[in-house]
Amino acid sequence: MLKNKRNRFAQLAFAFGCAISSQVLMAKAVINVNEFGVQSNNGSDSTYGVFEAIKAAKAQGATKLIFDKGRYDFYGDRATEKLVYISNNDPGIKRIVFPLEGIKDLEIDGQGAEFIFHGGINPFVIDQSQQLTFRNFSIDFERSFHSEATVLAVGKGYVDLHIPAQFPYKITDAGLLKFQAKADDQPNKITIEKLERRKASVNEVNYQYKRVLEFDVNKREPAYQKKDISTGNGLPAKKLAGERNVRVFHPKINATVGNVLVFQFKHRSFPGFVISDSADVTLDNVTIHHAGGMGVLAQRSHNVTVQNSKVTPSAGRMVSATADATHFVNCTGKVQLINNLFENQKDDATNIHGIYVAVDKILDDKTIEVRLQHPQQYGFDFIDAGDTLELVHAPSMSTYNTAKVASSQRISNEITRVVFEAPFDTRLQAGDSIAEVRDYAQVLIKGNIIRRNRARGMLLNSRGKTIVEDNYFHAPGSAILFEGDANFWYEQGGISHAIIRNNVFENNFYTEWGRGVIAVAAGIDEKYQESSRYNHNILIENNLFKVFDHAPVLNLFSVSGLTFKNNTIEKTNAYPERAKFNSLFVVNHSNNVSIEANNKVIGFNQSQKQLLTPTNKL
Amino acid sequence: MLKNKRNRFAQLAFAFGCAISSQVLMAKAVINVNEFGVQSNNGSDSTYGVFEAIKAAKAQGATKLIFDKGRYDFYGDRATEKLVYISNNDPGIKRIVFPLEGIKDLEIDGQGAEFIFHGGINPFVIDQSQQLTFRNFSIDFERSFHSEATVLAVGKGYVDLHIPAQFPYKITDAGLLKFQAKADDQPNKITIEKLERRKASVNEVNYQYKRVLEFDVNKREPAYQKKDISTGNGLPAKKLAGERNVRVFHPKINATVGNVLVFQFKHRSFPGFVISDSADVTLDNVTIHHAGGMGVLAQRSHNVTVQNSKVTPSAGRMVSATADATHFVNCTGKVQLINNLFENQKDDATNIHGIYVAVDKILDDKTIEVRLQHPQQYGFDFIDAGDTLELVHAPSMSTYNTAKVASSQRISNEITRVVFEAPFDTRLQAGDSIAEVRDYAQVLIKGNIIRRNRARGMLLNSRGKTIVEDNYFHAPGSAILFEGDANFWYEQGGISHAIIRNNVFENNFYTEWGRGVIAVAAGIDEKYQESSRYNHNILIENNLFKVFDHAPVLNLFSVSGLTFKNNTIEKTNAYPERAKFNSLFVVNHSNNVSIEANNKVIGFNQSQKQLLTPTNKL
Repeated sequence: MLKNKRNRFAQLAFAFGCAISSQVLMAKAVINVNEFGVQSNNGSDSTYGVFEAIKAAKAQGATKLIFDKGRYDFYGDRATEKLVYISNNDPGIKRIVFPLEGIKDLEIDGQGAEFIFHGGINPFVIDQSQQLTFRNFSIDFERSFHSEATVLAVGKGYVDLHIPAQFPYKITDAGLLKFQAKADDQPNKITIEKLERRKASVNEVNYQYKRVLEFDVNKREPAYQKKDISTGNGLPAKKLAGERNVRVFHPKINATVGNVLVFQFKHRSFPGFVISDSADVTLDNVTIHHAGGMGVLAQRSHNVTVQNSKVTPSAGRMVSATADATHFVNCTGKVQLINNLFENQKDDATNIHGIYVAVDKILDDKTIEVRLQHPQQYGFDFIDAGDTLELVHAPSMSTYNTAKVASSQRISNEITRVVFEAPFDTRLQAGDSIAEVRDYAQVLIKGNIIRRNRARGMLLNSRGKTIVEDNYFHAPGSAILFEGDANFWYEQGGISHAIIRNNVFENNFYTEWGRGVIAVAAGIDEKYQESSRYNHNILIENNLFKVFDHAPVLNLFSVSGLTFKNNTIEKTNAYPERAKFNSLFVVNHSNNVSIEANNKVIGFNQSQKQLLTPTNKL
Repeated sequence: MLKNKRNRFAQLAFAFGCAISSQVLMAKAVINVNEFGVQSNNGSDSTYGVFEAIKAAKAQGATKLIFDKGRYDFYGDRATEKLVYISNNDPGIKRIVFPLEGIKDLEIDGQGAEFIFHGGINPFVIDQSQQLTFRNFSIDFERSFHSEATVLAVGKGYVDLHIPAQFPYKITDAGLLKFQAKADDQPNKITIEKLERRKASVNEVNYQYKRVLEFDVNKREPAYQKKDISTGNGLPAKKLAGERNVRVFHPKINATVGNVLVFQFKHRSFPGFVISDSADVTLDNVTIHHAGGMGVLAQRSHNVTVQNSKVTPSAGRMVSATADATHFVNCTGKVQLINNLFENQKDDATNIHGIYVAVDKILDDKTIEVRLQHPQQYGFDFIDAGDTLELVHAPSMSTYNTAKVASSQRISNEITRVVFEAPFDTRLQAGDSIAEVRDYAQVLIKGNIIRRNRARGMLLNSRGKTIVEDNYFHAPGSAILFEGDANFWYEQGGISHAIIRNNVFENNFYTEWGRGVIAVAAGIDEKYQESSRYNHNILIENNLFKVFDHAPVLNLFSVSGLTFKNNTIEKTNAYPERAKFNSLFVVNHSNNVSIEANNKVIGFNQSQKQLLTPTNKL
């Protein structure tokens, strides 16, 4: 089942064996957390009780952990602490409320419970576990890691804001706007308040921002054609008349009165669910109102399903998760997103990809050192004895050979030393890229609603068969992007077989994250664009595309084999047209691309034939 | 020898035993790091070679590791990584160049080597080791964690600065001054440069500031009567004509043209030497030019000596370490500082103290949970089975009983659960404080020069016999402070026997860190000040005090037993007199204090008798 991670999982199986054999006598199938002093609806801290309940479930081999319906509060000071490396999020010592490590066959059923987290803590971290199901609960944070403000007025180089009480802030002595955990109610009292302030100042990092983005208050989505404005954590500001009214200054700032300015959380420290080195994990009817990072991040895991679930903000907030709703890295088996709602998160609804590392040094004919390139990938250990690695010429992204790993040694969270079983291909040189050859995940994305978030809908970069059907997309950038590169993000892609059918794409790409509603891209150096083909075999059929101007419905680059048939493209007036776009189909450096005549085009002035003819420029 | 940390050290002894017995055949007494590919004077990274040399020294039981004289460079990407909790500094995953764990009897002799560290890395971390000596080398960082600038002009609410090239900076889009690792030379190139920029932006945290302090450029010390100005990391700024000239804005900012403004490093992530749970550690002829935190931090260690060493900035910088030169927490045996120079660090020359934790919850008559109160103490595990703890009434700081620990369990880095052997004193309640009763360190501070730093000279708070002799002090705050509190810093003090003799105190306390040249304080609640006596038995004799005004030479609070005799107090004109001070001796809430008639007072207008008569107000 987990062929290429045998070391990691052999240990795991051993741990299960021990736990089960020594505890058989105490076995109890269902544990209610209230047996461990966990109380709902009274504000008490449920963290330690839940920890003890999980420990008991593991010891007893329980198959179900249940909560009675109600509100449960979780604080950090008695949470389990663990060093966690989380790809595409921030690594570090995490305070974890549900630490699930080495657990097999457990369902956590909230029965409608609401989990409210306080401060910088991590709700769920799953590691080296199997057969876990999470259902029937919601998660939220009392104070979100991002902040929001309503635009009261706009002038040259400034906007006036009203900041709701749920987003405490201060203006520092140096005149900068900073957000914080709590209001500075009693700045002159000492002892307890002084201690609290000191802690709050330590915790300030949890409420730092790095940029702002304007959201349309009526449409509840990123405002038309608006971009992130980079701010750093501290806009020059001054207090205005009126409670919690503030003027902030920035040469590029600009907004529409009444809209909401969202202050993007600077870090990705507190994803909702982290799933590492695990198998058969399902989220079913789980609502993620907020996370300080991604909603669900799964890495090196096998068979992960998110179904009947929601990423959606709680009342009074514009934004849900502060990064992607879901994200999958080097996963295997099946990745399934079925019947979910993903809305208002600050990044893509999903991104499914592998990781490239760069060859840093060649030590001898069997030994190299490789380097993780993106700081948010640091600590991502994926090279084990027995693995097969592909050797990739980075500028062309072409795989020229593979090699089998005899042993690996982590030098640091950035560098790994790899010894191969046999001398490697002599073409291998420093600067090349390496990725794991694995049971690439088969992807099923079906029946989801994706809308109102920042950036793209979905980044689909698994080499396993990928099916996207019966979804609704309304993303401000590309609805679907196939990509991959080995020079900046170092995300391994290279679709081998994708089917996109029976979806509704409604007025996507109304801001400029991406190059078209469906875009296929790859970070291939100019020199190799004529020859290199990175993505393959894509079928797009029976979809409805509603578009409001002539921006690309399809924008291709470096594709071999794509058929676009039986789709309907319908013109709307949802947003103003942009003069710069004049071609629904853009095809560059690709082969066997067929835009068929049976596609329907409705509501445009030009002819169907004109509209269906691709150009090779944006 | 290490009576009360037996668990920790039993493990250690076992580890030594194994290492020695299995490796006898390979034994080699002296290892030169050049045997492991370490090269000097060519800029190459010596980190991994030094790691391998240390590993070999440990395996072979070598007693000496030597460097040839020369410059050695160390980078972080191949450094050993380890989670380290460092009291009074910042915990976290550290990249460690000299990771010394479980080592016995080793001398590291630099033979005049210069170690230059690059980026956010930790030079020396010593853990669970014994008999280590470090000698004959200097440490410095290529780019300091703090930054400095020369004042060009001053106006209302702004100063104009020239920032030397060794302190790279940028002004952000939002108009804020930020410091960084490297200059943004090629902002428009991609790939490598873009990757570098991304890494640099991740590393920005290593160059953040939180306040500024003005240094007198001629005296090379904090400017007369100047205080820290709190800034946050980002003063509003604009570029001026002239290379690297910048105007920064702050309502309280003010300085003298020509002086140096020092931007205080926001964090304490990179102390020079961390010594944890170790014994018999000596630094001899070691120069610390810079550290991003304290120079030397020893915790839970036995017998630590720093001698013939220096903390002093390298050429072109005003500041050396960004926090205390040395600092000792819960140490035992002997703490010795002999014949050192401690200058220009951004905090005290030393602070020797214990740690109080607060009682957070009482679970039953033998079981409590205690809470570390200061975020920089989090993770400081000091309660082990077999320890005796004192039970302290926090507002009066009086110890009313002790109790012996049967077992302890760390719940988080903040909370520890403690089970006592027997039911504890029923007076114990939440909010009380707890500290370890131990072989309190005997302290010898002899022949040192302490000058030009920020804040105080020395904070002496060990209950072992403390001797301070033959030193020269010129600190902007108190030269010597005895204190301790259980309501903010939670530092355990309570001197039992101190002798301060034959020192020269030259024009200390010229800014207002502290309340006198020698001050004895304690954080005792007003209600208990009449009765509680926290510090005891202090003799101050044969010292020369040069003072420039009538600020207190001695300011006492809550002392039982102090004799001030045979000292000379001589008036100077080193700084302007401050009208607010009018009493050389201030004594409050103390018993058995004797300011003897044999003290000499020179150069004042008032009579000796007048000057030697204490008042009870500042």
